Amino acid sequence: MNADDTLARLADVIESRRGGDPDKSYVARLFHKGADAMLKKVGEEATEVVMAAKDVPHGGGADKLVGEVADLWFHTMVVLAAHGLRPADVLAELRRREGLSGLEEFAARKAQARERGEA
Amino acid sequence: MNADDTLARLADVIESRRGGDPDKSYVARLFHKGADAMLKKVGEEATEVVMAAKDVPHGGGADKLVGEVADLWFHTMVVLAAHGLRPADVLAELRRREGLSGLEEFAARKAQARERGEA
Amino acid sequence: MNADDTLARLADVIESRRGGDPDKSYVARLFHKGADAMLKKVGEEATEVVMAAKDVPHGGGADKLVGEVADLWFHTMVVLAAHGLRPADVLAELRRREGLSGLEEFAARKAQARERGEA
Amino acid sequence: MNADDTLARLADVIESRRGGDPDKSYVARLFHKGADAMLKKVGEEATEVVMAAKDVPHGGGADKLVGEVADLWFHTMVVLAAHGLRPADVLAELRRREGLSGLEEFAARKAQARERGEA
Repeated sequence: MNADDTLARLADVIESRRGGDPDKSYVARLFHKGADAMLKKVGEEATEVVMAAKDVPHGGGADKLVGEVADLWFHTMVVLAAHGLRPADVLAELRRREGLSGLEEFAARKAQARERGEA
Repeated sequence: MNADDTLARLADVIESRRGGDPDKSYVARLFHKGADAMLKKVGEEATEVVMAAKDVPHGGGADKLVGEVADLWFHTMVVLAAHGLRPADVLAELRRREGLSGLEEFAARKAQARERGEA
Repeated sequence: MNADDTLARLADVIESRRGGDPDKSYVARLFHKGADAMLKKVGEEATEVVMAAKDVPHGGGADKLVGEVADLWFHTMVVLAAHGLRPADVLAELRRREGLSGLEEFAARKAQARERGEA
Repeated sequence: MNADDTLARLADVIESRRGGDPDKSYVARLFHKGADAMLKKVGEEATEVVMAAKDVPHGGGADKLVGEVADLWFHTMVVLAAHGLRPADVLAELRRREGLSGLEEFAARKAQARERGEA
Protein backbone atom coordinates (compact mmCIF):
# COMPACT_ATOMS: atom_id res chain seq x y z
CA MET A 1 0.00 0.00 0.00
CA ASN A 2 1.35 3.41 -0.80
CA ALA A 3 1.21 6.52 1.40
CA ASP A 4 -1.70 8.03 -0.44
CA ASP A 5 -3.70 4.98 0.52
CA THR A 6 -2.45 5.22 4.11
CA LEU A 7 -3.33 8.87 4.59
CA ALA A 8 -6.54 8.67 2.57
CA ARG A 9 -7.68 5.60 4.50
CA LEU A 10 -6.80 7.26 7.78
CA ALA A 11 -8.86 10.27 6.71
CA ASP A 12 -11.72 7.90 5.93
CA VAL A 13 -11.46 6.38 9.41
CA ILE A 14 -11.54 9.85 10.99
CA GLU A 15 -14.55 10.77 8.86
CA SER A 16 -16.41 7.60 9.80
CA ARG A 17 -15.88 8.13 13.53
CA ARG A 18 -16.52 11.86 13.87
CA GLY A 19 -20.21 11.47 14.58
CA GLY A 20 -19.85 8.39 16.78
CA ASP A 21 -20.26 7.85 20.49
CA PRO A 22 -17.81 10.07 22.45
CA ASP A 23 -17.60 7.39 25.14
CA LYS A 24 -16.41 4.78 22.69
CA SER A 25 -14.41 6.68 20.09
CA TYR A 26 -11.41 8.94 20.66
CA VAL A 27 -12.06 10.78 17.38
CA ALA A 28 -15.73 11.26 18.24
CA ARG A 29 -14.67 12.59 21.63
CA LEU A 30 -12.36 15.16 20.00
CA PHE A 31 -15.16 16.30 17.69
CA HIS A 32 -17.55 16.40 20.64
CA LYS A 33 -15.16 18.54 22.69
CA GLY A 34 -14.81 20.89 19.76
CA ALA A 35 -12.25 22.80 17.72
CA ASP A 36 -10.11 24.03 20.61
CA ALA A 37 -9.65 20.52 22.00
CA MET A 38 -8.25 19.37 18.64
CA LEU A 39 -5.96 22.37 18.35
CA LYS A 40 -4.70 21.91 21.88
CA LYS A 41 -3.67 18.41 20.86
CA VAL A 42 -1.72 19.84 17.91
CA GLY A 43 0.22 22.10 20.29
CA GLU A 44 0.73 19.25 22.73
CA GLU A 45 1.87 16.74 20.12
CA ALA A 46 4.24 19.29 18.54
CA THR A 47 5.82 19.69 21.99
CA GLU A 48 6.14 15.91 22.25
CA VAL A 49 7.87 15.78 18.86
CA VAL A 50 10.35 18.39 20.11
CA MET A 51 11.00 16.45 23.33
CA ALA A 52 11.39 13.10 21.53
CA ALA A 53 13.84 14.66 19.05
CA LYS A 54 15.84 16.19 21.92
CA ASP A 55 16.04 12.72 23.52
CA VAL A 56 17.43 10.92 20.47
CA PRO A 57 21.10 11.92 21.05
CA HIS A 58 20.71 10.66 24.63
CA GLY A 59 19.26 7.25 23.81
CA GLY A 60 15.65 8.31 23.35
CA GLY A 61 14.96 6.01 20.47
CA ALA A 62 14.10 6.95 16.92
CA ASP A 63 10.90 4.91 17.18
CA LYS A 64 9.64 7.26 19.89
CA LEU A 65 10.22 10.21 17.54
CA VAL A 66 8.41 8.40 14.71
CA GLY A 67 5.48 7.72 17.05
CA GLU A 68 5.22 11.34 18.11
CA VAL A 69 5.34 12.57 14.50
CA ALA A 70 2.59 10.04 13.72
CA ASP A 71 0.53 11.50 16.60
CA LEU A 72 1.11 15.04 15.30
CA TRP A 73 0.18 14.18 11.72
CA PHE A 74 -2.90 12.29 12.95
CA HIS A 75 -4.16 15.25 14.98
CA THR A 76 -3.53 17.73 12.14
CA MET A 77 -5.65 15.40 10.00
CA VAL A 78 -8.44 15.63 12.58
CA VAL A 79 -8.21 19.44 12.32
CA LEU A 80 -8.30 19.19 8.53
CA ALA A 81 -11.37 16.94 8.72
CA ALA A 82 -13.11 19.43 11.01
CA HIS A 83 -12.79 21.97 8.19
CA GLY A 84 -13.84 19.61 5.40
CA LEU A 85 -10.25 19.19 4.20
CA ARG A 86 -8.27 16.08 3.36
CA PRO A 87 -4.58 15.11 3.46
CA ALA A 88 -4.73 15.18 -0.34
CA ASP A 89 -5.15 18.97 -0.09
CA VAL A 90 -1.90 19.26 1.86
CA LEU A 91 -0.08 16.94 -0.52
CA ALA A 92 -1.35 18.94 -3.50
CA GLU A 93 -0.01 22.11 -1.87
CA LEU A 94 3.39 20.46 -1.31
CA ARG A 95 3.43 19.39 -4.98
CA ARG A 96 2.30 22.83 -6.12
CA ARG A 97 5.18 24.49 -4.35
CA GLU A 98 7.61 22.08 -5.88
CA GLY A 99 6.02 22.48 -9.28
CA LEU A 100 6.16 26.26 -9.27
CA SER A 101 9.83 26.82 -8.59
CA GLY A 102 11.04 24.13 -6.28
CA LEU A 103 9.86 23.67 -2.74
CA GLU A 104 13.15 24.88 -1.43
CA GLU A 105 12.97 28.18 -3.24
CA PHE A 106 9.40 28.73 -2.02
CA ALA A 107 10.47 28.20 1.55
CA ALA A 108 13.43 30.51 1.08
CA ARG A 109 11.26 33.29 -0.32
CA LYS A 110 8.82 32.88 2.54
CA ALA A 111 11.64 33.08 5.09
CA GLN A 112 13.03 36.18 3.41
CA ALA A 113 9.59 37.80 3.39
CA ARG A 114 9.34 37.08 7.10
CA GLU A 115 12.72 38.59 7.79
CA ARG A 116 11.65 41.71 5.92
CA GLY A 117 8.57 41.78 8.12
CA GLU A 118 6.08 41.08 5.36
CA ALA A 119 4.83 37.79 6.69
CA MET B 1 1.06 10.91 -8.58
CA ASN B 2 0.08 9.45 -5.24
CA ALA B 3 0.99 10.76 -1.81
CA ASP B 4 3.72 8.23 -1.31
CA ASP B 5 5.44 9.71 -4.32
CA THR B 6 4.82 13.23 -3.01
CA LEU B 7 6.22 12.64 0.45
CA ALA B 8 9.04 10.37 -0.73
CA ARG B 9 10.05 12.87 -3.41
CA LEU B 10 9.92 15.69 -0.89
CA ALA B 11 12.14 13.64 1.43
CA ASP B 12 14.54 13.17 -1.49
CA VAL B 13 14.63 16.93 -2.08
CA ILE B 14 15.39 17.54 1.60
CA GLU B 15 18.11 14.90 1.51
CA SER B 16 19.70 16.38 -1.62
CA ARG B 17 19.83 19.89 -0.12
CA ARG B 18 20.96 19.18 3.42
CA GLY B 19 24.66 19.50 2.65
CA GLY B 20 24.26 22.44 0.29
CA ASP B 21 25.20 26.10 0.59
CA PRO B 22 23.38 27.70 3.55
CA ASP B 23 23.29 30.99 1.68
CA LYS B 24 21.40 29.47 -1.23
CA SER B 25 19.26 26.73 0.29
CA TYR B 26 16.69 27.04 3.07
CA VAL B 27 17.02 23.35 3.95
CA ALA B 28 20.83 23.61 4.03
CA ARG B 29 20.48 26.64 6.29
CA LEU B 30 18.28 24.70 8.72
CA PHE B 31 20.79 21.85 8.82
CA HIS B 32 23.63 24.36 9.23
CA LYS B 33 21.87 26.06 12.16
CA GLY B 34 21.35 22.66 13.78
CA ALA B 35 18.75 20.54 15.51
CA ASP B 36 17.25 23.26 17.72
CA ALA B 37 16.58 25.55 14.76
CA MET B 38 14.55 22.80 13.09
CA LEU B 39 12.63 22.03 16.25
CA LYS B 40 11.90 25.70 16.84
CA LYS B 41 10.29 25.75 13.41
CA VAL B 42 8.09 22.78 14.39
CA GLY B 43 6.84 24.72 17.42
CA GLU B 44 6.38 27.85 15.35
CA GLU B 45 4.53 26.14 12.50
CA ALA B 46 2.27 24.25 14.94
CA THR B 47 1.32 27.65 16.39
CA GLU B 48 0.59 28.91 12.88
CA VAL B 49 -1.67 25.90 12.23
CA VAL B 50 -3.57 26.74 15.42
CA MET B 51 -3.95 30.40 14.43
CA ALA B 52 -5.01 29.59 10.86
CA ALA B 53 -7.62 27.12 12.14
CA LYS B 54 -8.93 29.71 14.60
CA ASP B 55 -9.30 32.16 11.70
CA VAL B 56 -11.36 29.86 9.47
CA PRO B 57 -14.75 30.62 11.13
CA HIS B 58 -13.94 34.32 10.72
CA GLY B 59 -13.06 34.26 7.02
CA GLY B 60 -9.49 33.12 7.37
CA GLY B 61 -9.50 30.86 4.36
CA ALA B 62 -9.14 27.08 4.29
CA ASP B 63 -6.21 27.48 1.88
CA LYS B 64 -4.27 29.32 4.59
CA LEU B 65 -4.85 26.37 6.94
CA VAL B 66 -3.74 23.91 4.27
CA GLY B 67 -0.59 25.96 3.69
CA GLU B 68 0.28 26.01 7.39
CA VAL B 69 -0.26 22.25 7.72
CA ALA B 70 2.01 21.82 4.68
CA ASP B 71 4.66 23.96 6.45
CA LEU B 72 4.31 21.88 9.60
CA TRP B 73 4.57 18.55 7.80
CA PHE B 74 7.55 19.84 5.79
CA HIS B 75 9.45 20.87 8.91
CA THR B 76 8.69 17.59 10.70
CA MET B 77 10.14 15.86 7.63
CA VAL B 78 13.30 17.95 8.03
CA VAL B 79 13.51 16.74 11.65
CA LEU B 80 12.98 13.15 10.50
CA ALA B 81 15.74 13.56 7.89
CA ALA B 82 18.10 14.89 10.56
CA HIS B 83 17.67 11.58 12.36
CA GLY B 84 17.95 9.38 9.28
CA LEU B 85 14.20 8.78 9.16
CA ARG B 86 11.74 9.02 6.27
CA PRO B 87 8.02 9.79 5.96
CA ALA B 88 7.59 6.10 5.10
CA ASP B 89 8.50 5.32 8.73
CA VAL B 90 5.65 7.53 9.98
CA LEU B 91 3.21 6.06 7.47
CA ALA B 92 4.24 2.54 8.49
CA GLU B 93 3.58 3.46 12.13
CA LEU B 94 0.13 4.81 11.23
CA ARG B 95 -0.64 1.59 9.33
CA ARG B 96 0.74 -0.53 12.18
CA ARG B 97 -1.61 1.10 14.66
CA GLU B 98 -4.51 0.50 12.36
CA GLY B 99 -3.41 -3.05 11.75
CA LEU B 100 -3.11 -3.93 15.42
CA SER B 101 -6.54 -3.03 16.64
CA GLY B 102 -7.70 0.01 14.81
CA LEU B 103 -6.04 3.40 14.97
CA GLU B 104 -8.89 4.73 16.97
CA GLU B 105 -8.60 2.14 19.67
CA PHE B 106 -4.87 2.69 19.92
CA ALA B 107 -5.40 6.40 20.44
CA ALA B 108 -8.05 5.69 23.03
CA ARG B 109 -5.80 3.37 24.98
CA LYS B 110 -3.01 5.92 24.87
CA ALA B 111 -5.33 8.63 26.16
CA GLN B 112 -6.52 6.36 28.97
CA ALA B 113 -2.95 5.53 29.92
CA ARG B 114 -2.21 9.25 30.08
CA GLU B 115 -5.18 9.89 32.27
CA ARG B 116 -3.99 7.17 34.61
CA GLY B 117 -0.62 8.91 34.67
CA GLU B 118 1.28 6.13 32.91
CA ALA B 119 2.26 8.09 29.84
CA MET C 1 13.29 46.51 43.71
CA ASN C 2 10.54 43.94 44.04
CA ALA C 3 8.98 41.89 41.26
CA ASP C 4 5.91 44.04 41.07
CA ASP C 5 8.17 46.92 40.16
CA THR C 6 10.02 44.78 37.64
CA LEU C 7 6.95 43.51 35.83
CA ALA C 8 5.06 46.80 36.13
CA ARG C 9 8.05 48.73 34.84
CA LEU C 10 8.51 46.26 32.00
CA ALA C 11 4.83 46.71 31.12
CA ASP C 12 5.41 50.47 31.11
CA VAL C 13 8.34 50.06 28.74
CA ILE C 14 6.21 47.92 26.40
CA GLU C 15 3.43 50.51 26.56
CA SER C 16 5.78 53.39 25.80
CA ARG C 17 7.24 51.64 22.75
CA ARG C 18 4.14 50.17 21.12
CA GLY C 19 3.46 53.19 18.94
CA GLY C 20 7.12 53.82 18.11
CA ASP C 21 9.12 53.41 14.91
CA PRO C 22 9.07 49.76 13.78
CA ASP C 23 12.55 50.19 12.34
CA LYS C 24 13.99 51.24 15.68
CA SER C 25 11.94 49.35 18.27
CA TYR C 26 11.40 45.60 18.55
CA VAL C 27 8.18 46.11 20.51
CA ALA C 28 6.90 48.63 17.96
CA ARG C 29 7.73 46.13 15.21
CA LEU C 30 5.70 43.39 16.94
CA PHE C 31 2.72 45.75 17.29
CA HIS C 32 3.16 46.83 13.66
CA LYS C 33 3.19 43.22 12.46
CA GLY C 34 0.03 42.53 14.45
CA ALA C 35 -1.54 40.06 16.82
CA ASP C 36 -0.46 36.87 15.01
CA ALA C 37 3.20 37.90 15.03
CA MET C 38 3.09 38.28 18.82
CA LEU C 39 1.32 34.96 19.28
CA LYS C 40 3.76 33.20 17.00
CA LYS C 41 6.51 34.42 19.32
CA VAL C 42 4.67 32.91 22.31
CA GLY C 43 4.61 29.52 20.56
CA GLU C 44 8.24 29.89 19.53
CA GLU C 45 9.48 30.95 22.96
CA ALA C 46 7.52 28.16 24.67
CA THR C 47 9.34 25.72 22.37
CA GLU C 48 12.65 27.31 23.36
CA VAL C 49 11.80 26.89 27.05
CA VAL C 50 11.13 23.20 26.39
CA MET C 51 14.42 22.76 24.52
CA ALA C 52 16.45 24.65 27.14
CA ALA C 53 14.92 22.54 29.93
CA LYS C 54 15.70 19.34 28.00
CA ASP C 55 19.33 20.50 27.70
CA VAL C 56 19.87 21.12 31.41
CA PRO C 57 20.63 17.46 32.34
CA HIS C 58 23.16 17.44 29.47
CA GLY C 59 25.06 20.58 30.43
CA GLY C 60 22.71 23.10 28.87
CA GLY C 61 23.01 25.65 31.63
CA ALA C 62 20.31 26.85 33.98
CA ASP C 63 20.98 30.44 32.85
CA LYS C 64 19.85 29.50 29.34
CA LEU C 65 16.59 28.18 30.77
CA VAL C 66 16.12 31.36 32.82
CA GLY C 67 16.72 33.45 29.70
CA GLU C 68 14.14 31.52 27.68
CA VAL C 69 11.53 31.80 30.44
CA ALA C 70 12.27 35.55 30.52
CA ASP C 71 11.68 35.67 26.75
CA LEU C 72 8.40 33.77 27.14
CA TRP C 73 7.12 35.97 29.97
CA PHE C 74 8.15 39.09 28.03
CA HIS C 75 6.22 38.05 24.92
CA THR C 76 3.13 37.06 26.92
CA MET C 77 3.29 40.56 28.41
CA VAL C 78 3.31 42.01 24.88
CA VAL C 79 0.16 39.96 24.15
CA LEU C 80 -1.41 41.21 27.39
CA ALA C 81 -0.55 44.81 26.43
CA ALA C 82 -2.16 44.33 23.02
CA HIS C 83 -5.41 43.56 24.84
CA GLY C 84 -5.14 46.38 27.38
CA LEU C 85 -4.08 44.01 30.14
CA ARG C 86 -1.22 44.22 32.63
CA PRO C 87 0.91 41.66 34.51
CA ALA C 88 -0.95 42.82 37.63
CA ASP C 89 -4.08 41.16 36.17
CA VAL C 90 -2.27 37.83 35.93
CA LEU C 91 -0.82 38.18 39.43
CA ALA C 92 -4.27 39.01 40.80
CA GLU C 93 -5.63 35.87 39.16
CA LEU C 94 -2.86 33.78 40.71
CA ARG C 95 -3.64 35.30 44.13
CA ARG C 96 -7.37 34.81 43.61
CA ARG C 97 -6.91 31.10 42.98
CA GLU C 98 -4.80 30.78 46.08
CA GLY C 99 -7.26 32.81 48.09
CA LEU C 100 -10.28 30.75 47.07
CA SER C 101 -9.13 27.31 48.03
CA GLY C 102 -5.45 26.99 47.41
CA LEU C 103 -3.83 27.23 44.01
CA GLU C 104 -3.06 23.58 44.08
CA GLU C 105 -6.63 22.52 44.64
CA PHE C 106 -7.80 24.79 41.83
CA ALA C 107 -5.33 23.21 39.45
CA ALA C 108 -6.38 19.75 40.59
CA ARG C 109 -10.06 20.45 39.98
CA LYS C 110 -9.26 21.85 36.54
CA ALA C 111 -7.24 18.75 35.67
CA GLN C 112 -10.03 16.48 36.87
CA ALA C 113 -12.57 18.41 34.82
CA ARG C 114 -10.35 17.94 31.79
CA GLU C 115 -10.06 14.23 32.40
CA ARG C 116 -13.84 14.00 32.60
CA GLY C 117 -13.97 15.82 29.26
CA GLU C 118 -15.61 18.95 30.61
CA ALA C 119 -12.78 21.34 29.82
CA MET D 1 0.78 42.51 48.45
CA ASN D 2 3.18 43.16 45.60
CA ALA D 3 4.00 40.85 42.73
CA ASP D 4 7.27 39.71 44.22
CA ASP D 5 5.31 38.38 47.14
CA THR D 6 2.79 36.74 44.82
CA LEU D 7 5.36 34.93 42.69
CA ALA D 8 7.66 34.14 45.60
CA ARG D 9 4.75 32.77 47.63
CA LEU D 10 3.56 30.74 44.67
CA ALA D 11 7.08 29.33 44.31
CA ASP D 12 6.97 28.44 48.01
CA VAL D 13 3.67 26.61 47.51
CA ILE D 14 5.12 24.66 44.58
CA GLU D 15 8.19 23.81 46.64
CA SER D 16 6.12 22.63 49.61
CA ARG D 17 3.98 20.32 47.43
CA ARG D 18 6.59 18.78 45.15
CA GLY D 19 7.28 15.82 47.42
CA GLY D 20 3.65 15.30 48.39
CA ASP D 21 1.14 12.60 47.57
CA PRO D 22 0.55 12.43 43.79
CA ASP D 23 -3.04 11.37 44.42
CA LYS D 24 -3.79 14.49 46.44
CA SER D 25 -1.60 17.18 44.93
CA TYR D 26 -1.51 18.36 41.30
CA VAL D 27 2.04 19.71 41.74
CA ALA D 28 3.20 16.46 43.35
CA ARG D 29 1.64 14.57 40.43
CA LEU D 30 3.56 16.69 37.91
CA PHE D 31 6.83 16.06 39.77
CA HIS D 32 5.96 12.36 40.02
CA LYS D 33 5.28 12.13 36.28
CA GLY D 34 8.61 13.82 35.59
CA ALA D 35 10.22 16.55 33.53
CA ASP D 36 8.49 15.77 30.22
CA ALA D 37 5.02 15.97 31.79
CA MET D 38 5.78 19.48 33.04
CA LEU D 39 7.18 20.57 29.69
CA LYS D 40 4.21 19.13 27.83
CA LYS D 41 2.02 21.38 29.99
CA VAL D 42 4.12 24.40 28.97
CA GLY D 43 3.49 23.60 25.31
CA GLU D 44 -0.18 22.95 25.97
CA GLU D 45 -0.73 26.11 28.00
CA ALA D 46 1.13 28.23 25.42
CA THR D 47 -1.31 26.88 22.83
CA GLU D 48 -4.21 27.83 25.11
CA VAL D 49 -2.85 31.37 25.45
CA VAL D 50 -2.74 31.61 21.65
CA MET D 51 -6.32 30.33 21.30
CA ALA D 52 -7.67 32.60 24.05
CA ALA D 53 -5.98 35.62 22.45
CA LYS D 54 -7.43 34.69 19.06
CA ASP D 55 -10.89 34.56 20.66
CA VAL D 56 -10.77 38.04 22.23
CA PRO D 57 -11.82 39.94 19.07
CA HIS D 58 -14.74 37.51 18.76
CA GLY D 59 -16.06 37.87 22.30
CA GLY D 60 -13.71 35.41 23.99
CA GLY D 61 -13.26 37.47 27.13
CA ALA D 62 -10.09 39.08 28.41
CA ASP D 63 -10.47 37.14 31.68
CA LYS D 64 -10.06 33.87 29.77
CA LEU D 65 -6.78 35.19 28.33
CA VAL D 66 -5.61 36.29 31.78
CA GLY D 67 -6.44 32.83 33.14
CA GLU D 68 -4.48 31.06 30.41
CA VAL D 69 -1.45 33.32 30.92
CA ALA D 70 -1.70 32.54 34.65
CA ASP D 71 -1.69 28.81 33.78
CA LEU D 72 1.34 29.27 31.52
CA TRP D 73 3.31 31.26 34.09
CA PHE D 74 2.39 28.72 36.79
CA HIS D 75 3.65 25.78 34.76
CA THR D 76 6.87 27.58 33.80
CA MET D 77 7.39 28.12 37.53
CA VAL D 78 6.99 24.37 38.07
CA VAL D 79 9.70 23.81 35.45
CA LEU D 80 11.91 26.39 37.16
CA ALA D 81 11.36 24.66 40.51
CA ALA D 82 12.34 21.31 39.00
CA HIS D 83 15.71 22.85 38.18
CA GLY D 84 16.19 24.59 41.51
CA LEU D 85 15.30 27.99 40.08
CA ARG D 86 12.93 30.68 41.31
CA PRO D 87 10.83 33.39 39.65
CA ALA D 88 13.30 35.87 41.19
CA ASP D 89 15.91 34.51 38.77
CA VAL D 90 13.69 35.36 35.80
CA LEU D 91 12.88 38.80 37.19
CA ALA D 92 16.58 39.47 37.78
CA GLU D 93 17.26 38.54 34.16
CA LEU D 94 14.53 40.91 32.95
CA ARG D 95 16.03 43.69 35.10
CA ARG D 96 19.55 42.86 33.92
CA ARG D 97 18.54 43.26 30.29
CA GLU D 98 16.93 46.56 31.05
CA GLY D 99 19.93 47.65 33.06
CA LEU D 100 22.44 46.83 30.37
CA SER D 101 21.07 48.78 27.48
CA GLY D 102 17.33 48.70 27.64
CA LEU D 103 15.23 45.58 27.30
CA GLU D 104 14.04 46.68 23.93
CA GLU D 105 17.50 47.01 22.50
CA PHE D 106 18.48 43.61 23.84
CA ALA D 107 15.51 42.02 22.15
CA ALA D 108 16.30 43.86 18.94
CA ARG D 109 19.89 42.62 18.92
CA LYS D 110 18.73 39.10 19.59
CA ALA D 111 16.26 39.29 16.72
CA GLN D 112 18.93 40.65 14.39
CA ALA D 113 21.31 37.89 15.39
CA ARG D 114 18.60 35.39 14.58
CA GLU D 115 18.00 36.92 11.19
CA ARG D 116 21.71 36.67 10.46
CA GLY D 117 21.52 33.01 11.44
CA GLU D 118 23.71 33.34 14.52
CA ALA D 119 21.05 32.36 17.01
